[in-house]
Amino acid sequence: ARIVTLPGDGVGPEVTAAAVAVLKTVVARYEHVFAFEEQPIGGAAIDATGEPLPAATLAACRSADAVLLGAVGGPKWSDPNAPVRPEQGLLALRAALGVYANLRPLQVHPTLASLSPLKNDRLRHVDVLFVRELTGGMYFGARTRTADAATDECKYSVTEIERVVRRAFELARARRQHLTSVDKANVLETSRLWRSTVQRIAADYPDVKLEHQLVDSMAMLLLTRPNRYDVVVTENLFGDILTDEAAALAGSLGLLPSASLGEGRRGLYEPIHGSAPDIAGQGVANPVGAILSAALLLRHSLGLEAEAVAVESAVEQVLRHGPHSRDIGGDAGTDEVRDAVIAAID
Amino acid sequence: ARIVTLPGDGVGPEVTAAAVAVLKTVVARYEHVFAFEEQPIGGAAIDATGEPLPAATLAACRSADAVLLGAVGGPKWSDPNAPVRPEQGLLALRAALGVYANLRPLQVHPTLASLSPLKNDRLRHVDVLFVRELTGGMYFGARTRTADAATDECKYSVTEIERVVRRAFELARARRQHLTSVDKANVLETSRLWRSTVQRIAADYPDVKLEHQLVDSMAMLLLTRPNRYDVVVTENLFGDILTDEAAALAGSLGLLPSASLGEGRRGLYEPIHGSAPDIAGQGVANPVGAILSAALLLRHSLGLEAEAVAVESAVEQVLRHGPHSRDIGGDAGTDEVRDAVIAAID
Ligand SMILES: CC(C)[C@H](C(=O)O)[C@@H](O)C(=O)O
Ligand SMILES: CC(C)[C@H](C(=O)O)[C@@H](O)C(=O)O
Repeated sequence: ARIVTLPGDGVGPEVTAAAVAVLKTVVARYEHVFAFEEQPIGGAAIDATGEPLPAATLAACRSADAVLLGAVGGPKWSDPNAPVRPEQGLLALRAALGVYANLRPLQVHPTLASLSPLKNDRLRHVDVLFVRELTGGMYFGARTRTADAATDECKYSVTEIERVVRRAFELARARRQHLTSVDKANVLETSRLWRSTVQRIAADYPDVKLEHQLVDSMAMLLLTRPNRYDVVVTENLFGDILTDEAAALAGSLGLLPSASLGEGRRGLYEPIHGSAPDIAGQGVANPVGAILSAALLLRHSLGLEAEAVAVESAVEQVLRHGPHSRDIGGDAGTDEVRDAVIAAID
Repeated sequence: ARIVTLPGDGVGPEVTAAAVAVLKTVVARYEHVFAFEEQPIGGAAIDATGEPLPAATLAACRSADAVLLGAVGGPKWSDPNAPVRPEQGLLALRAALGVYANLRPLQVHPTLASLSPLKNDRLRHVDVLFVRELTGGMYFGARTRTADAATDECKYSVTEIERVVRRAFELARARRQHLTSVDKANVLETSRLWRSTVQRIAADYPDVKLEHQLVDSMAMLLLTRPNRYDVVVTENLFGDILTDEAAALAGSLGLLPSASLGEGRRGLYEPIHGSAPDIAGQGVANPVGAILSAALLLRHSLGLEAEAVAVESAVEQVLRHGPHSRDIGGDAGTDEVRDAVIAAID
């Protein structure tokens, strides 16, 4: 298998290196042959080439089986008037790879429940899979800017909605048969198209219980009744906001992985935490989100389920018994956590 | 003073009636003369006249000193393909009255902290004032719809941003001198215009500490560090989502008021809860959000500070000693809570 790694900015290189070390352990243990190729993206790529997604990076990703990304962005490149921004590299990559379905699983590890801002009784049985539309909406609409005003367009086609919603229905069918679709249909036209498309597709999934929620209500319900949800599907911007909110429930953003998938098997895998410039370069970032992203890569792009489970079980042991990184109340560095995960892979 | 009441849909009429009863008590106690006039809006107005904001309703609101609204919307009118929707009435009213600054104060009453989904230690000293832009953005942009696709436009002018941001700076100056501006400047052009406008205006408020947050991070920070925030200003849609999320921290949406203000003194006051169709007509809705909205009306539109404080103190006593409505763990009905508040006004 060919894996392209895109370390990116901030803590991205540290956590990506840890995840690659874990993947290499799995490769050796299960006698696979993986080729790893590293490429620049984001701020690092702007500094090196002037472009947030250099052509060579994109070409490498296109011919890879899977892409493992760290994080992009940071204060160095975040002047609102800068001509080019790290995030453009990530957005262009998502679009170019056609990875329209961003899967963000949320579970709260029992050992870490005390770190969650939510009361413990609310956290029992929380097991949500967010499916965020990733290549449409305001992220990719036309924009205008004059001295006096600016615009962003949110656009969705039926095709764009249908493919991600079908994916969500399929995932719900394989889990607890409950799908929550989130929109703002009482105000937005794109949300009304979203809702009627969901309603139409629902006829093909009579075994899945479908529920609609408005995005503002959902922001509240994720706190008051998080264990009521199974699969939650929503458009790009709402998904960005709601998944970060939900991630806070887990106790640390540093724990959570994501998989972005399109029609084929190729996927883009990234921890949901950002570049965390405040702790970059210190060797203290939690590599668990990146390592679990590598597990999703094994599962979804390579079809290596046993290998994915081996990584997830190893992480589970480390979360249970330590060592723990700072964000989850310990004092272990990135390398120590990485080594503990590697040691736990049997 | 002339007050127009717009009971609207669902529990709107019940909570509005309770708030009016409290206002009438204040009028009698402080020897004012208020004229009350009731008008239809939302689904009730669609049923009665075919229009969610009849011309007579709008005319009455335009010539009032203040408008007290209940809630609009409900399943009866929420088919995504319906030609006219209750929410259009509310949006048209906000625009027509020019109430661009929606103030949503959040405090967590100590007696009710046990109802909050958040751990108690996180709730200490939470005292946030959200200032949500209310008459711009995607709520009011151009929309298109074909069989295959839909669009919504988000548009902001410098003028629209500047007036609400100045209001937020003024409010922060009068509070704890800390302003957090929320945007998605790493992706959206309107957010970059928002951020650079905020940066420019900040020069006029050197005494106020300014902080920028991305909306996804903010959705997380509201849970992990809610007591870090003083005044939070953001655009319309982000404000809709974040204020509902924040409202969950208070233990019940039924407790929270809002004030929508423009250039003059006239304002639109509404509880932040919706029409709650599941409990409408049962006499069990919590009237506290509506009653506290009436207190904001006394303060902001009528300049009656002592009267506003009298209402707030009465509510405070009732929250402390009961009776409590169902949403906050009691079994009192709307009328019982109303009567207790009235009895506590000295
Ligand atoms: C870095 C940024 C563009 C990105 C997004 O908004 O999609 C991030 O917040 C995410 O959620 O992956
Ligand atoms: C009813 C709806 C249109 C409204 C909004 O989205 O503004 C409501 O959610 C609110 O927050 O006041």
